[in-house]
Amino acid sequence: MPTISNKGHSMPESPIRKLVPHAEKAIKNGKHIYHLNIGQPDIKTPEIALQAVKDNDIDILAYSNSKGEESYRKKLVSYYHKNDINISIDDIIVTTGASEALYFLFSSIMDPNDEVIICEPFYANYIAFSIASGVNVVPAISKIEDNFSLPSIEAFEKLITKKTKAILICNPGNPTGYLYSKEEIQNLAVIAKTHDLFLIADEVYREFVYDGNTHYSILHEKGLDEHTIMIDSVSKRYSMCGARIGCLISKNKTIMQTVLKFAQARLSPPSYAQIACEAALDTPQSYFDDVAAEYVDRRNTLVEELQKIDNIKVAMPKGAFYCMVELPIKNSDNFAKWLLEDFDVNGETIMVAPAAGFYSTPSIGLNQIRIAYVLKKESLIKAVGILKEALKVYKD
Amino acid sequence: MPTISNKGHSMPESPIRKLVPHAEKAIKNGKHIYHLNIGQPDIKTPEIALQAVKDNDIDILAYSNSKGEESYRKKLVSYYHKNDINISIDDIIVTTGASEALYFLFSSIMDPNDEVIICEPFYANYIAFSIASGVNVVPAISKIEDNFSLPSIEAFEKLITKKTKAILICNPGNPTGYLYSKEEIQNLAVIAKTHDLFLIADEVYREFVYDGNTHYSILHEKGLDEHTIMIDSVSKRYSMCGARIGCLISKNKTIMQTVLKFAQARLSPPSYAQIACEAALDTPQSYFDDVAAEYVDRRNTLVEELQKIDNIKVAMPKGAFYCMVELPIKNSDNFAKWLLEDFDVNGETIMVAPAAGFYSTPSIGLNQIRIAYVLKKESLIKAVGILKEALKVYKD
Ligand SMILES: Cc1ncc(COP(=O)(O)O)c(C=O)c1O
Ligand SMILES: Cc1ncc(COP(=O)(O)O)c(C=O)c1O
Repeated sequence: MPTISNKGHSMPESPIRKLVPHAEKAIKNGKHIYHLNIGQPDIKTPEIALQAVKDNDIDILAYSNSKGEESYRKKLVSYYHKNDINISIDDIIVTTGASEALYFLFSSIMDPNDEVIICEPFYANYIAFSIASGVNVVPAISKIEDNFSLPSIEAFEKLITKKTKAILICNPGNPTGYLYSKEEIQNLAVIAKTHDLFLIADEVYREFVYDGNTHYSILHEKGLDEHTIMIDSVSKRYSMCGARIGCLISKNKTIMQTVLKFAQARLSPPSYAQIACEAALDTPQSYFDDVAAEYVDRRNTLVEELQKIDNIKVAMPKGAFYCMVELPIKNSDNFAKWLLEDFDVNGETIMVAPAAGFYSTPSIGLNQIRIAYVLKKESLIKAVGILKEALKVYKD
Repeated sequence: MPTISNKGHSMPESPIRKLVPHAEKAIKNGKHIYHLNIGQPDIKTPEIALQAVKDNDIDILAYSNSKGEESYRKKLVSYYHKNDINISIDDIIVTTGASEALYFLFSSIMDPNDEVIICEPFYANYIAFSIASGVNVVPAISKIEDNFSLPSIEAFEKLITKKTKAILICNPGNPTGYLYSKEEIQNLAVIAKTHDLFLIADEVYREFVYDGNTHYSILHEKGLDEHTIMIDSVSKRYSMCGARIGCLISKNKTIMQTVLKFAQARLSPPSYAQIACEAALDTPQSYFDDVAAEYVDRRNTLVEELQKIDNIKVAMPKGAFYCMVELPIKNSDNFAKWLLEDFDVNGETIMVAPAAGFYSTPSIGLNQIRIAYVLKKESLIKAVGILKEALKVYKD
């Protein structure tokens, strides 16, 4: 048999997916699982978006524009204007999820063996997109003790080599829930200019910002147009993960032309989904306010309950819907499996995301887990209760 | 400004897209254009598929399975069974168009500098997917004089090196319209086995087969399970290009596991589109019969009209909806531009696809064009009339 590629060999299997067989076994054994492991919100998609698809009058489901439908891009421009982000329709390419945008971008700005510095812990699939493009990830480590705030300028500068092409942040962060301050973004801008690097911000959680904070986008930063690329998505914003629509925004014309060549090769983003997305842009502010209130309530409940457990560290999330927790254990991969297979409280257990998958540095994060607060308050209280009981008896 | 990647630099711009500014200028000048350049059918999408989307009862538009919805894959299995292709649900991964399937496959089986032999002329975006994966395309040249039939076994064997990993064919062919015979597929099977290569068939035009011929799929070939990968799509089959749903089929477990890792990294294929696709599988056979009858009628008209022109060569298409034509000119890129900018018959002109983009060999195909017969008969007659007049006056 002919062999597969080295690239294919090195593609990671998602740390969460690895748990799926264990979860299936638990379900087979009649256990009820609280899913704290996923990034799929339980929030309803705005009615206006769902209805627009039902009302569509398509008779030939044709390819759309490779850049995305013009009418959708026009409305996106207004959305960003409302958020004080001043862009034009030519600065946007609509992609099949933020996932595709990240892949197109990595391939457009980096060649095999180039380096991208990513603040660690980070969204696990960044590693997959790097491997797919042959690019090396250099982690800039942020710490749970500092609530995962941005590493110092000096820490970044130590990591920069001749191969470094870009810095990537996620703001607000998955898995950290951290929201970068204006000063932190400005520090990054200085580094990008001084060392002539691209600065990429994954802002797919931009609407999920709490406690009266405002989101300082990388696109708010003046004088950095040639360096900045912003990645966005409707997946979380409108609870439309299945739409598979994201976008890439930059004022750097060379980047846009290059990304467009990748976009043209795959023809176009999905048509039905763009109808939903265009309509979703008319979602009333009250929807976002309600969603934010719900998440704040869940987060407060989660953190409060977690703090009742001894010897754990919790990073207080300021955005997104994830919370990183350090546990008094050695290996959270084993712990997560054990929770599914060998533990329950009255037939119930929890599924968590072991944090190792969010770190490329092998030795750190092994005692951390990520909890997604995408469940109702009552379920979160029960779930943390199960975690507490589990830690009392677990031995690794 | 930081520089973009070499990969990004080498990504080709689509030969057809390059003509778009010239077409826009022609339209601005009030010309009417007959579009013979595109692969977007004018056939209506089956009502059953359109209606299923209108009737959907989604309230949270969630990520679907990374392999594609199980219910959809189950029905796909029945579709292929009806076509004498014996596969199970685990042999299918649903992708965002055949485009994504090709990209995942290239990255799964080949590393940078590996070689894939592709029968030339070929679908232009194969080059883009190769560049994206760092893979080198080695063309096996088929000739218009032979109606673009498969090159000989010896011709293939001359091209095989230590770096060769796969052979890729498109059956029926875009841009050739050629339908490979059982014997040709069996010859390829021998080469694949003898030299331990993967054999990839892009069968997105599998339903477009004329003149009482039947389609011999690569999956009909026995004893080749470890070598064969089939790429399919709903884009042309149900005139649902905007759905962005395709699939990859193989019984080689290692390939499927590797492709799945790429599929998991991008999370899932679009959800609404899968509803349409699942319903489309109940499209009555009469739909396909009608569509085939329409295309045969168009093809016959097209070829008949073309044969009235002196000094041209036409490859008789046996499938798909493209026709390659050799013209008594030197450079069809220039000719296509000239048609749009400097020529008209009573305010009407034509847009054709210059064939250079379908060849990776620089010197051949320059005097060829591809005509897509995706227009009604009357329009095709007028369009070929314009071509005839144009050739009388054109000088290159
Ligand atoms: C930080 C981050 N970026 C990108 C994505 C991918 O989003 P999309 O669904 O738009 O591909 C996710 C999904 O969870 C994410 O958490
Ligand atoms: C031969 C061939 N393969 C693949 C594709 C891409 O199809 P999809 O729309 O499924 O991505 C096309 C589209 O024209 C094609 O002609």
